[in-house]
Amino acid sequence: MAASSSLTVSQALVSRAIVGSGSSSSSSTPSDRLALPGFVRSSIAGRSLKSSMRGRRTADCPPRRGVARAMAAVETVEGKAETTALVDKSVNTIRFLAIDAVEKANSGHPGLPMGCAPMGHILYDEVMRYNPKNPFWFNRDRFVLSAGHGCMLQYALLHLAGYDSVQEEDLKSFRQWGSRTPGHPENFETTGIEVTTGPLGQGIANAVGLALAEKHLAARFNKPDNEIVDHYTYAILGDGCQMEGISNEACSLAGHWGLGKLIAFYDDNHISIDGDTEIAFTEDVNARFEALGWHTIWVKNGNNGYDEIRAAIKEAKAVTDKPTLIKVTTTIGYGSPNKANSYAVHGSALGAKEVDATRQNLAWPHEPFHVPADVKSHWSRHVPEGASLESKWNAKFAEYEKKYPEEAAELKGIISGELPAGWEKALPTYTPESPADATRNLSQQCLNALAKVLPGLLGGSADLASSNMTLLKMFGDFQKNTPEERNVRFGVREHGMGAICNGIALHCPGLIPYCATFFVFTDYMRAAMRISALCEAGVIYVMTHDSIGLGEDGPTHQPIEHLASFRAMPNILMLRPGDGNETAGAYKVAVLNRKRPSVLALSRQKLPQLPGTSVEGVEKGGYIVSDSDGKPEVILIGTGSELEIAFKAGDELRKEGKKVRVVSLISWELFDEQSAEYKESVLPSDVSARVSVEAGSTFGWEKIVGSKGKAIGIDRFGASAPAGKIYKEFGITVENVVASAKSLLA
Amino acid sequence: MAASSSLTVSQALVSRAIVGSGSSSSSSTPSDRLALPGFVRSSIAGRSLKSSMRGRRTADCPPRRGVARAMAAVETVEGKAETTALVDKSVNTIRFLAIDAVEKANSGHPGLPMGCAPMGHILYDEVMRYNPKNPFWFNRDRFVLSAGHGCMLQYALLHLAGYDSVQEEDLKSFRQWGSRTPGHPENFETTGIEVTTGPLGQGIANAVGLALAEKHLAARFNKPDNEIVDHYTYAILGDGCQMEGISNEACSLAGHWGLGKLIAFYDDNHISIDGDTEIAFTEDVNARFEALGWHTIWVKNGNNGYDEIRAAIKEAKAVTDKPTLIKVTTTIGYGSPNKANSYAVHGSALGAKEVDATRQNLAWPHEPFHVPADVKSHWSRHVPEGASLESKWNAKFAEYEKKYPEEAAELKGIISGELPAGWEKALPTYTPESPADATRNLSQQCLNALAKVLPGLLGGSADLASSNMTLLKMFGDFQKNTPEERNVRFGVREHGMGAICNGIALHCPGLIPYCATFFVFTDYMRAAMRISALCEAGVIYVMTHDSIGLGEDGPTHQPIEHLASFRAMPNILMLRPGDGNETAGAYKVAVLNRKRPSVLALSRQKLPQLPGTSVEGVEKGGYIVSDSDGKPEVILIGTGSELEIAFKAGDELRKEGKKVRVVSLISWELFDEQSAEYKESVLPSDVSARVSVEAGSTFGWEKIVGSKGKAIGIDRFGASAPAGKIYKEFGITVENVVASAKSLLA
Repeated sequence: MAASSSLTVSQALVSRAIVGSGSSSSSSTPSDRLALPGFVRSSIAGRSLKSSMRGRRTADCPPRRGVARAMAAVETVEGKAETTALVDKSVNTIRFLAIDAVEKANSGHPGLPMGCAPMGHILYDEVMRYNPKNPFWFNRDRFVLSAGHGCMLQYALLHLAGYDSVQEEDLKSFRQWGSRTPGHPENFETTGIEVTTGPLGQGIANAVGLALAEKHLAARFNKPDNEIVDHYTYAILGDGCQMEGISNEACSLAGHWGLGKLIAFYDDNHISIDGDTEIAFTEDVNARFEALGWHTIWVKNGNNGYDEIRAAIKEAKAVTDKPTLIKVTTTIGYGSPNKANSYAVHGSALGAKEVDATRQNLAWPHEPFHVPADVKSHWSRHVPEGASLESKWNAKFAEYEKKYPEEAAELKGIISGELPAGWEKALPTYTPESPADATRNLSQQCLNALAKVLPGLLGGSADLASSNMTLLKMFGDFQKNTPEERNVRFGVREHGMGAICNGIALHCPGLIPYCATFFVFTDYMRAAMRISALCEAGVIYVMTHDSIGLGEDGPTHQPIEHLASFRAMPNILMLRPGDGNETAGAYKVAVLNRKRPSVLALSRQKLPQLPGTSVEGVEKGGYIVSDSDGKPEVILIGTGSELEIAFKAGDELRKEGKKVRVVSLISWELFDEQSAEYKESVLPSDVSARVSVEAGSTFGWEKIVGSKGKAIGIDRFGASAPAGKIYKEFGITVENVVASAKSLLA
Repeated sequence: MAASSSLTVSQALVSRAIVGSGSSSSSSTPSDRLALPGFVRSSIAGRSLKSSMRGRRTADCPPRRGVARAMAAVETVEGKAETTALVDKSVNTIRFLAIDAVEKANSGHPGLPMGCAPMGHILYDEVMRYNPKNPFWFNRDRFVLSAGHGCMLQYALLHLAGYDSVQEEDLKSFRQWGSRTPGHPENFETTGIEVTTGPLGQGIANAVGLALAEKHLAARFNKPDNEIVDHYTYAILGDGCQMEGISNEACSLAGHWGLGKLIAFYDDNHISIDGDTEIAFTEDVNARFEALGWHTIWVKNGNNGYDEIRAAIKEAKAVTDKPTLIKVTTTIGYGSPNKANSYAVHGSALGAKEVDATRQNLAWPHEPFHVPADVKSHWSRHVPEGASLESKWNAKFAEYEKKYPEEAAELKGIISGELPAGWEKALPTYTPESPADATRNLSQQCLNALAKVLPGLLGGSADLASSNMTLLKMFGDFQKNTPEERNVRFGVREHGMGAICNGIALHCPGLIPYCATFFVFTDYMRAAMRISALCEAGVIYVMTHDSIGLGEDGPTHQPIEHLASFRAMPNILMLRPGDGNETAGAYKVAVLNRKRPSVLALSRQKLPQLPGTSVEGVEKGGYIVSDSDGKPEVILIGTGSELEIAFKAGDELRKEGKKVRVVSLISWELFDEQSAEYKESVLPSDVSARVSVEAGSTFGWEKIVGSKGKAIGIDRFGASAPAGKIYKEFGITVENVVASAKSLLA
């Protein structure tokens, strides 16, 4: 088990918010699992204590006239060298690095780092296992600051811990153009940051994904004599994260899956941007988490109750069958005499005067950005310790490799992200004689073919597995007691699903998560999908029922504007295959794009296998599917299920002697990336008679068809009726394409 | 208080899932409030009971060989005329109307109606107050089928109750083109349907909005001697709704606000599309709702425990300070001998053979769509009773009007939706000399001006009131104990906020809800916004920080593709005002569009008041802001904060002797709706030198600038830095516009 050796066991009092046993959903009671001495258990409900806490917090504020807080007399059991005074000093270093950076930028959020510095210190200095000089060491503990606006907390910690990515000059260029310390944590800007947070609730859901990945890989690869995968996932989330629905979705799953190595700190500071959380957030959070199947703890004094925090972490680690939420009551902006415990300290620089007052108040005589020598010296051990942790793990891996060469090879691939040679040959191929089928079914053939060759492929659906056709038949369900399996059952939780997949993708390069729902319900998870695109997580989004072609379910279920809305989004591939070969090509592209998510829009309805489609064509984004001899008079352009319509319309027009080219524009992004020559070869600029057909919004198609062309599409909401009827009523038909082409040629 | 006269008080056992008192967040205990005799209180947790329930459900399935279920001997206290046999018959009528309609359509969801028919019957036949011949009667009880896929339940109930919108022929054309019975409930297709549901979780959040509206209007208009506003809001939600984050957001607010007249039935049938909910959903739902501040009840026998259901509703009504969740354990597809209690009955027709078997099993000898005479006769009273309810209320209103003429006039306006004459004169006007300001601040001026003249305006922000600038200064906060106020504090719950506003907007035509967050976080609430557009709810979305202009918060907070993504969405107005007059114009448009939501994209940064902008221009969507004499050589087109850039570039170019027109394209949708002549007058087709500038994706701009024009925008993610720096680095500058224009003229 993990590095408990660096954890000081405390005999201080730790009160835990115990929800009445009537609401416990597990047969084991806390007393079965806990052996820490001296705990006081409270059965008082959260709310009433919370009220009393507010009074206490104010009373507990540090003295205002520059008097240093009296050093708490803390008994340490294992006799660690550092005194509480040094911890205080380290914690204040963190606070002032945040204060100073925000002040210099005149922008940012000092309140959270000032309140959460103690838990941050304990995590990075005493608890977590990591190697500052190799932030990508596979078996590191993961940390996610879900309340990403408080990123100066994490930058300060990375700086103290010796990460190269956050030097003093980086702290001084906080939130400036080109710096490595942007306004919210971004994994693609700062090594040592695991995921991209800031939009609230995403981070805790990412953390669930990271913890899922660990549990899955541990179950697959660990051996009784060698637990080669073994790390914790820590997160800090605030009131804002807690209010967001996505966090409830993800945490409900974390409880269901029993992610025992997920430990989340809830920064209970009672302040959000609009003021006291009393105005909008009065639920009993710990009771909710108990209902979700979590173990919960309440640390009442997060401002300087170091031992309470330590004991809570120890307790959390002792609970191995449930994730743990540690509610830590803190004072936002702790130490600021005039702004602490108010929204004024949440998202603005303190201002020179208040910075001075805070320096006075916390007895901090140092210049901005100063790290006292003893603090520096104390933290300096993390570089050698981290190197040692990694080298020990490497030795352990060498043993593992010797004894379990096959598993080691597979795990190596997952760790490195190197795809097995020739993996793409597993993808199915189709001829025009292959049976017509829905692309959602063809997608299932691809997924099942890939599962055999890609050890890192895993995923599932938001309760639509049998509609999205996403089950991997050779595997069972990833569940609490079968975490080695690869079919993930997300329930009806699209938003959480997307963010969990981001966490899985960012756990290590060889994990390739996919997730699925109806295409229209990307609206539920769009924030997570945007983060996939931004944070370079190559999630594969399997989105079926991609048009009015789904029929009777009606307009609430029929996407219209969704293709356009993803084509407009940066760094995401929108792919809409039209048959089997295009579906296989879409999967090839999606698997290869590990730093760019892919959205596959797939049909519910059957489609014929068209002659002329190809994987190679798909890789170019747009290509000629059928053509007349010589220069075309008219170009018909289709995507997905309407490629068939364009194709048939081409045949019809050719019967009438027209020279017609049919183009599949499966991915606008890939096509845009081709050379000007290639693009001109597909869509010659002097052929202005162009007709596009796509069962979605025509928005954006002017770029393709030009001002003289015609875009056939749907610029209204759909309707509830059999699919064929709607296609006909909306004019998404061969006849309409033919007539439109003729009108352009007339 | 409401129609408890039609409620049979039961002496049957009702077990309630009581969460341990430790988690109760209120000082009053359940025993303070309950007076029903004979209740058995169970302190056993939900999970273990759930497990035993599953066994029971199977055992409790009706006999399979056509033997009619023995009539339950139920004592009724108030001696209602109808026997349980008649209720059984009515419930089976509902079941078979659903079975037959789905079978005829060969599409739909029979499982929920078959399981929920008992609660449906009791609600529509015994509990709810409505007038079938005037579905819009203001004081009606509202019902929301959040699990919208089960819409045949509601269509059957509307049919039995005598609504004109659902005749026998409508049931027979379920899910067909042009029918009034689409595949999910749609308020704009079927009178009697309150809101549009189907996308899971939306409905329960709509119901929270409806209940908020009632509580607000009751607090504003009720008098000690005349409670003119007084109705309940009922909802049925399923496992899917419960899993969605939006429902947790909305229900957390409902608990916070103490919406005592919101009564939600949780159809606990333990089946979702992927199978048993055990695979993804094992949380303790009632315990979660207790944590959210709800009162909870568990009806164990939802299949035929009519008296349990009745007693639960009575209990729920007795709890006036909290919303109530009634968990009703049912069997999905109840009555189907081979498919009940399985996902097979969720979303497909039973098939002829199983329909026959179900008819046998439930002893239902009737033809498809048959309503037995005694059932018809029993339900027939609702037409006269409904008329009587409305006419009594009308008399009450007449009294109210006599005694409180001012309030009555205001309430009438809210009920009718008629805007006060001259309201638009309240909107502020600006001259070029007015101080530069951020459009978010100008928006606040408009909102505060409108609040004085529009009695139905209310709304708020998702914890960003001081950033979105949305507080109405003349009002306090809508809270549990101050529901008459109009500033709604949504907390960080964008998705719930949007759907709650849909509920408010659809409560009655004169309520004009607005809601606010950063523009980028429309991604969190897009599903609700799409429903606004679809269901014709004129919500005003106040979306500030609408570009890279927000600066240091960085790419997670900077919208890029969002303007395009809303321009592609049907029936929604995307408005991006550039100064004070345009902001006022945007509000005029938004208020007038009661059946189309508006999205206002507003700047964080200061913008000058431009000469040439106007409310009239805004109403046309696009218009000339400045122009040279004669035909322009080049047209510069800007929106929002970049209109200033286009304007200045125009001045620059004119200094160099160019003939330049500057156009504001504040709303593409409104501009599209203008006459061809008007559009040609603004953007003459023979002026192909066009440059657009907008700090967002260029996707879609080809339509405006044409293949020879140039769209200046941002087709990558943003960056964390001061706003001015990012604008410069990204080339969103006067210099770039000038240079681009010159390159086109060269």
